Amino acid sequence: MTQGAVTQDAATAGQEVSQPARVELQFQPGGLRVRVPPGVTLFDAASWNGIAIDSTCGGHGTCKKCKIRVLDGSMPVSPPDARAFSPEELRAGWRLACRALADADVQVEVPPLVTRPKAATVGVGRQVILRPAAQKRYLELAEPSLADQQTDIERVLAALDDLDLRVDLAVLRYLGRRLRAADFKVTAVIVDDVLVDVQAGDTTGRLLGIAFDLGTTTVVATLLDLATGTPLAVASMLNKQQPFGADVITRISATMLDPRTLDTLSALARQTLGELAAQVCAQAGADPADVTEIAVAGNATMTHIALGIDPEPLGVAPFIMAARQLPELLADELDVPAHPRARAFVFPAFGAYVGGDITAGLLASGMNRDARIRLFIDIGTNCEIVLGNRDWLLATAAPAGPAFEGAAIRCGMRAADGAIEGIAIGPGDLKLTVIGDCEPAGLCGSGLVDAVAGLAGAGLLDRSGRLVPDEVAAGLQPALARRLTMLGQERVFVLHWLGEPGDAAASIYLSQRDIRELQFAKAAIATGWRVLLDEAELAESDIQQVLLAGSFGTYLSPASAIALGLVPKLPVLRVVSAGNVAGEGAKMALLSVRERAAALALLGEVKYVELSDRDGFNDAFVDQLQFPA
Amino acid sequence: MTQGAVTQDAATAGQEVSQPARVELQFQPGGLRVRVPPGVTLFDAASWNGIAIDSTCGGHGTCKKCKIRVLDGSMPVSPPDARAFSPEELRAGWRLACRALADADVQVEVPPLVTRPKAATVGVGRQVILRPAAQKRYLELAEPSLADQQTDIERVLAALDDLDLRVDLAVLRYLGRRLRAADFKVTAVIVDDVLVDVQAGDTTGRLLGIAFDLGTTTVVATLLDLATGTPLAVASMLNKQQPFGADVITRISATMLDPRTLDTLSALARQTLGELAAQVCAQAGADPADVTEIAVAGNATMTHIALGIDPEPLGVAPFIMAARQLPELLADELDVPAHPRARAFVFPAFGAYVGGDITAGLLASGMNRDARIRLFIDIGTNCEIVLGNRDWLLATAAPAGPAFEGAAIRCGMRAADGAIEGIAIGPGDLKLTVIGDCEPAGLCGSGLVDAVAGLAGAGLLDRSGRLVPDEVAAGLQPALARRLTMLGQERVFVLHWLGEPGDAAASIYLSQRDIRELQFAKAAIATGWRVLLDEAELAESDIQQVLLAGSFGTYLSPASAIALGLVPKLPVLRVVSAGNVAGEGAKMALLSVRERAAALALLGEVKYVELSDRDGFNDAFVDQLQFPA
Repeated sequence: MTQGAVTQDAATAGQEVSQPARVELQFQPGGLRVRVPPGVTLFDAASWNGIAIDSTCGGHGTCKKCKIRVLDGSMPVSPPDARAFSPEELRAGWRLACRALADADVQVEVPPLVTRPKAATVGVGRQVILRPAAQKRYLELAEPSLADQQTDIERVLAALDDLDLRVDLAVLRYLGRRLRAADFKVTAVIVDDVLVDVQAGDTTGRLLGIAFDLGTTTVVATLLDLATGTPLAVASMLNKQQPFGADVITRISATMLDPRTLDTLSALARQTLGELAAQVCAQAGADPADVTEIAVAGNATMTHIALGIDPEPLGVAPFIMAARQLPELLADELDVPAHPRARAFVFPAFGAYVGGDITAGLLASGMNRDARIRLFIDIGTNCEIVLGNRDWLLATAAPAGPAFEGAAIRCGMRAADGAIEGIAIGPGDLKLTVIGDCEPAGLCGSGLVDAVAGLAGAGLLDRSGRLVPDEVAAGLQPALARRLTMLGQERVFVLHWLGEPGDAAASIYLSQRDIRELQFAKAAIATGWRVLLDEAELAESDIQQVLLAGSFGTYLSPASAIALGLVPKLPVLRVVSAGNVAGEGAKMALLSVRERAAALALLGEVKYVELSDRDGFNDAFVDQLQFPA
Repeated sequence: MTQGAVTQDAATAGQEVSQPARVELQFQPGGLRVRVPPGVTLFDAASWNGIAIDSTCGGHGTCKKCKIRVLDGSMPVSPPDARAFSPEELRAGWRLACRALADADVQVEVPPLVTRPKAATVGVGRQVILRPAAQKRYLELAEPSLADQQTDIERVLAALDDLDLRVDLAVLRYLGRRLRAADFKVTAVIVDDVLVDVQAGDTTGRLLGIAFDLGTTTVVATLLDLATGTPLAVASMLNKQQPFGADVITRISATMLDPRTLDTLSALARQTLGELAAQVCAQAGADPADVTEIAVAGNATMTHIALGIDPEPLGVAPFIMAARQLPELLADELDVPAHPRARAFVFPAFGAYVGGDITAGLLASGMNRDARIRLFIDIGTNCEIVLGNRDWLLATAAPAGPAFEGAAIRCGMRAADGAIEGIAIGPGDLKLTVIGDCEPAGLCGSGLVDAVAGLAGAGLLDRSGRLVPDEVAAGLQPALARRLTMLGQERVFVLHWLGEPGDAAASIYLSQRDIRELQFAKAAIATGWRVLLDEAELAESDIQQVLLAGSFGTYLSPASAIALGLVPKLPVLRVVSAGNVAGEGAKMALLSVRERAAALALLGEVKYVELSDRDGFNDAFVDQLQFPA
């Protein structure tokens, strides 16, 4: 299924078209044509395609700088247009791009740039134009009189008439006193469409947000200045739920054994978020009350538990979430110290095992914007795989098991100081890369992949995953052969002698069983992306880029991943580490409502493919147990 | 300003028309033509005008019984139409009346009635078709499977697809467990557009609401069965804020003297509501958890304080409210024992002194629906006056002072046991009507009005409000003359001798100063409605009905009110007591979202006239101090 094929389907299939309709926009000068979903503003469509349009208000319709002129096609006049332009200008086709919705094909002229919109680079090289859901407006209001008995809130809202706001009861409680104490000079604090505060004087300089990557293992918080997009502080810590199990299944099981455990786990997740928020504010010398919004990217289990939602149906077939998209939430409901009416945006999940962290990751890596066909793989105990481009996306989850976490590996450990994270097996000997540059203490996931790929490359491992007999090894790699030995009943390959060389019991080694664990993980993952390729009727060679996401993906050697068949067989430069894309996606959601809307739109655009329900899954899995030739 | 005049204005004034546009609907058979605001459904327009259309679902688009056929004009096809009718039927003009919006002139045919919509009589003879904001739907859902991994909430919402619902986080928390424990047979509880609960099994038989009349003096609660419109229990008690002052001004002053008093007064109001709610549920043997909505009608001060909103700006010129319309509220925010996510509808206020109790009163008395020009007067310390009909409404507030509450009257008392509530002064002697049929203890407001009217009628009081000299009295009314005497420095008229006849000190009397108090009150009220008549360019005789609202209005003798000039000089049958219209309005808001919407629409329809800011107000007031000839 290529983009061309989709277009053809759409043209011929009539009623059954599953792709959303598009409208074509052409920008002059330059003549760039782009196709976008109806309802997108011309301002966004331009900026997404690298055409800068003037703006200083972030597209709120107030700065009136984002002028464009309609050359061909028609575009309705919006209320801010009527204020910004004279009747002659309107007739000549002038409109504000931030309020002009692309509803039909249109050709527009973009005047040369005078100012440049504020933007920040986030995610995988994504340029994000700042338009946070949180905003502040300084207002100088007329005082009421017998001739002007407008209510206090109507007076404030009249000064914000480009917005259609709801008001929090808490604001009404103190509004009268505060307006009068501040001589009616106040700052309105708005998040989305809610007026959350009216502050005395001008406080527009302080507008903060916190982006959280709520991982099963590690939680990361980034404090952002929402007015500039600048990160002010970062902190991370282990998820306090850790003692209840290393992965999501053990944590769900804990809640099933004792119903009170849900409250405990929920409180622990919220404590983790709360302590991190306090830490980043303290680091930056910021007042938590200036944090008006937070964003949280986490997998479905972490998100459910943090919000106190019963996770049991996630853990047993048929793996059902309570909800994909969550209701409006306050930071307070997650025990995060912030403005008392700060909002919380929690990333929606596609499925029980393709969670909000993946939604955030897709956003950060631009999977929803890029024309290239790309494969996104987040490797872990549960491995999430997404294939597609801006026109279509397929997702699945593969149960990779604990191999990459180090837990099921004899000498396995987390990617911490002392972990062998890289192994190069040459003709003479092997070289280890150790985290923290110290004495090796164990093997982490990326080291495991390197070791197995290296052994296979050196001929010490056959395609079926068996370590070759001693005599074969001695013939092929005489310098390495002595590392291949028996430990008890099991064949092992020693990576590092801790004691006397030859004493395998005092060494860091890779066992035959470790290799089997990795084989199972590799088979699950490779079956996953192969199923998606089949579904899309594409071949491996059609994939233009592979993105390895998550902390594990950052360390994994692309060459080893290709060698093992963990990722498709592609030129090594096409396989790239994307880093902590979930956290980056959370930042983007804080910085731009447009990006956030794009993340929510993904829910309707991504097609989820359930592997466990699929005919031929087991056969495909068995085939993938083999390493590539 | 009559209705005809308004129509003419609209036709000639072009842009300056303040009346909303109307569309004309004609119903066949019968040919009744009605003019309604655009956007009203044909179902409502018909029922408002006495034409019954079949319906059993309360207009939710689900029963598909409210069929009508378009004979002339066009009517778009709504999504429920497409499900209810075949393409041929749609082409023949069949539509569901509950979803058909009156956007242009149209002629429709209404089939003969098969069933009758549920309705209740509330307010001043208002027939209200039941369509509460609170509703329950019993659902039998398919269980999820690997082939159907819809989330739990999407499964529930898919069965409610005629509604566009938001979901409360609290519901998501237990949804998974509850659905599975109940074998996916559940009852969805909805208030407005929020899914507030999913209950195991079929609980559709239990749907309750509580209507509150939150008065400055007395608070009344009525428990309603929302499925039938039946009142199940009523209870009332004094507002627990009473010790802080008899009227709103003293209570506002209390909060200004000590900021902590607002919290105290707010808690007292909420305690009053909470205790009454518990009482009515106990009386009816109902579970408070089945109360899914409450409605509160109160004046602006009571409403502000109950919600913890600073009332200070209400109490000092220029008399500013925090808000007219209030945000979405929970019953829990008013400490009312009910379903934990029960909603609270609080009536909006027009102005600081024309509050939500008046909005509710106008609704209950049909001021927004009746073609007749009517005058609505709620007499109290603050007197609210509204003039108009369904096409236009003018409102004002007149500071009548404490005369009617008995506080400023020498022998005054509240309308309780022992209060003289009625006085008939005949040629020979006078007759008293005493509350509780016991020994008189004092004079309440309605007795005061009767007494003054009777004395004026007997010639013992001149037009300027002065008691006539003894010799004049002896000539005119020999039998009554001995009741006219001196007490200290002041002339008094004795109503009832408590001790020896002749001992005025041991009597219940009316003093010259009491009469002056009433004169001031009467002048304020009469100036109020005269200003509204001037504003509307109408004469007293144009008024077709006077409605006396509030508990005081219930007891007031229409004849005495006319005699004193408290109300316009009209045939006595045109002056009627409307009773507790605020409480009735609260009931209507619970029973029908349409009536509630009409109450909210009043905010935009009523024009508020500020008396204190008006040229010539003082001259008019002085003129009105005189009693009618």
